[in-house]
Amino acid sequence: MSDNTDKHPPGPRSCPIPIAQYPHVMAAHGGGGKLMHELVRRMFVATLKSPELEAEHDGAVLPVSPGRLAFTTDSFVISPLFFPGGDIGSLAVHGTVNDLAMCGARPYVLSAGFILEEGLPMEDLWRIVCSLRDAALEAGVRVVTGDTKVVERGKGDGVFINTSGIGLIDHDLRIGPTSIRGGDVIVLSGDIGRHGIAVMAVRSGLEFERPVTSDSASVAGIVAELLAAGLEIHCMRDLTRGGLSSALVEIAHKARRAVHIEEKQIVVMPEVRGACEMLGFDPLYVANEGRFVVILPAAQAERALAIIRRHPHGRDARIIGTAVADERPIVTMTSRIGTRRMIDMLSGEQLPRIC
Amino acid sequence: MSDNTDKHPPGPRSCPIPIAQYPHVMAAHGGGGKLMHELVRRMFVATLKSPELEAEHDGAVLPVSPGRLAFTTDSFVISPLFFPGGDIGSLAVHGTVNDLAMCGARPYVLSAGFILEEGLPMEDLWRIVCSLRDAALEAGVRVVTGDTKVVERGKGDGVFINTSGIGLIDHDLRIGPTSIRGGDVIVLSGDIGRHGIAVMAVRSGLEFERPVTSDSASVAGIVAELLAAGLEIHCMRDLTRGGLSSALVEIAHKARRAVHIEEKQIVVMPEVRGACEMLGFDPLYVANEGRFVVILPAAQAERALAIIRRHPHGRDARIIGTAVADERPIVTMTSRIGTRRMIDMLSGEQLPRIC
Repeated sequence: MSDNTDKHPPGPRSCPIPIAQYPHVMAAHGGGGKLMHELVRRMFVATLKSPELEAEHDGAVLPVSPGRLAFTTDSFVISPLFFPGGDIGSLAVHGTVNDLAMCGARPYVLSAGFILEEGLPMEDLWRIVCSLRDAALEAGVRVVTGDTKVVERGKGDGVFINTSGIGLIDHDLRIGPTSIRGGDVIVLSGDIGRHGIAVMAVRSGLEFERPVTSDSASVAGIVAELLAAGLEIHCMRDLTRGGLSSALVEIAHKARRAVHIEEKQIVVMPEVRGACEMLGFDPLYVANEGRFVVILPAAQAERALAIIRRHPHGRDARIIGTAVADERPIVTMTSRIGTRRMIDMLSGEQLPRIC
Repeated sequence: MSDNTDKHPPGPRSCPIPIAQYPHVMAAHGGGGKLMHELVRRMFVATLKSPELEAEHDGAVLPVSPGRLAFTTDSFVISPLFFPGGDIGSLAVHGTVNDLAMCGARPYVLSAGFILEEGLPMEDLWRIVCSLRDAALEAGVRVVTGDTKVVERGKGDGVFINTSGIGLIDHDLRIGPTSIRGGDVIVLSGDIGRHGIAVMAVRSGLEFERPVTSDSASVAGIVAELLAAGLEIHCMRDLTRGGLSSALVEIAHKARRAVHIEEKQIVVMPEVRGACEMLGFDPLYVANEGRFVVILPAAQAERALAIIRRHPHGRDARIIGTAVADERPIVTMTSRIGTRRMIDMLSGEQLPRIC
């Protein structure tokens, strides 16, 4: 963790709970007494550092300007806790920050609620809290309120994290499926399938020549630039559980419009494609944690593309399709060989506990 | 559940997921596909009913006036899920609504994040969601955004719920320990220890002649009246894990003032006292979920008391002590027989998974 702490000197530089004395999380760390207060103060408050957390009140009190705000919540139960490209701590920030961004909001504050399983190595918790802090700093959002619970062994799985977030909306756009118009184009911000495959590879012991890392990242910076450019964004959606296809099917249903996409415009890393073939997955349904679609008037698509591509997480952005008015709310895809097929929502479970 | 649904005709009147087909929660209910969308739409959106939930966007977009807001989060892992006087659903609303109230805020909106264990009876989930809805309606707050995850058997415990909340602050008071002044009095809103004992009784198979029910309730209505009366509230704190004593010790530390309380002013139901003696607990340390202390100038204490006592949950309100300036930040109590002792924070774990 020295890299992280070097970047952010204010917090503790090594695990602030004495490991020799408390190598693992114990039931009493959630009991409301001295041990819990020590854990909260030394592990969470000292590391996540914000004036609101330091007040240690029942909640954070925040100033707010008139207008609209976005509010979202996500619980993270990913297994394993650590994976190539991230861990449950960074993921818990990215997931919620991205949900705020998809509402067209600038992430303002986060809450963090930890459900710890008795026996969790204290060092693992420390790594996760540091990673959560770093992801929050990078996304420009601060953790202002939190909660810690401990459950017995076998009643949890290491750690689950809930983050909820408030974002500020300082424009007048109504961003959502019902704002989509016929002729709008669909821009996808990058290659797909990396998060799901990175996690599955760890679980199944799969090895790659060039390792697949999760795409887990905040897209709030990209979205802020799209908004600042004055683009008339009609809808955005990040591609998490259920992948690109489930996101598009949901959008088509809510928008009551058909969506057509072109397979050849959808970028998939060769390693991801290979792993999908081996494991029997379709990349269209595999989870992502740093990819989104933005739907806007065709005339503005190239400008949007240029903005997204300037970002490291947006280098592979492409226009992948269009929304069509006056048709049934279905999603169709023209394949590489020119055939057309309907894309449906995932029918069962593909990758459990991917986020 | 017929009572609940009769009160609120808009939602489904019986479990909206076909029990014959899906008697239990399955992994696929969290997989991001069709089954999850059915569960979200039919169980959560249709029952909790709010325009924001119905939009099924990544987050809720809400109007807000200039000023201050309160933001808080709590994860609920109580075991058992159902207990005399409530269940995890109502508790998840009361806990978060009360945290907002303690900040002097009027509860505005809630999020609800469910972590379900595979195998949870669908009927139990339905009861819990109904109970959560009823508690939210009663507290005057609506659920505007949510999340559902499913973990494998043995990696969770039925259901964990995180609720986060936003409250609106429309006064200029700075409510918190640092606002406490020497000579302020401490008003306790009711009898203590019922929540912890009600839950422990179920766990240990203890039976009472007159059953002890949890005090779990929203205190937001009482707080709204205290604020509307123009009382100069310096600090409030609800008494959850760690009980009255832990709350007072925390306050004394943060306020850097001594707190003196009188044991004879603290109301404890005879059944609760008896159970505490039998189980070896001190009621001062037992969890509550509908009790709080309010600390304010002595001259206003009687008015506060009168307001609190008008509420069914505040009938046993008493002035229990005072804050003293220029002393060490400790809590002392004069016992029934006139001796004085120091009150410390709970040192370990007393009642695990009480909230």
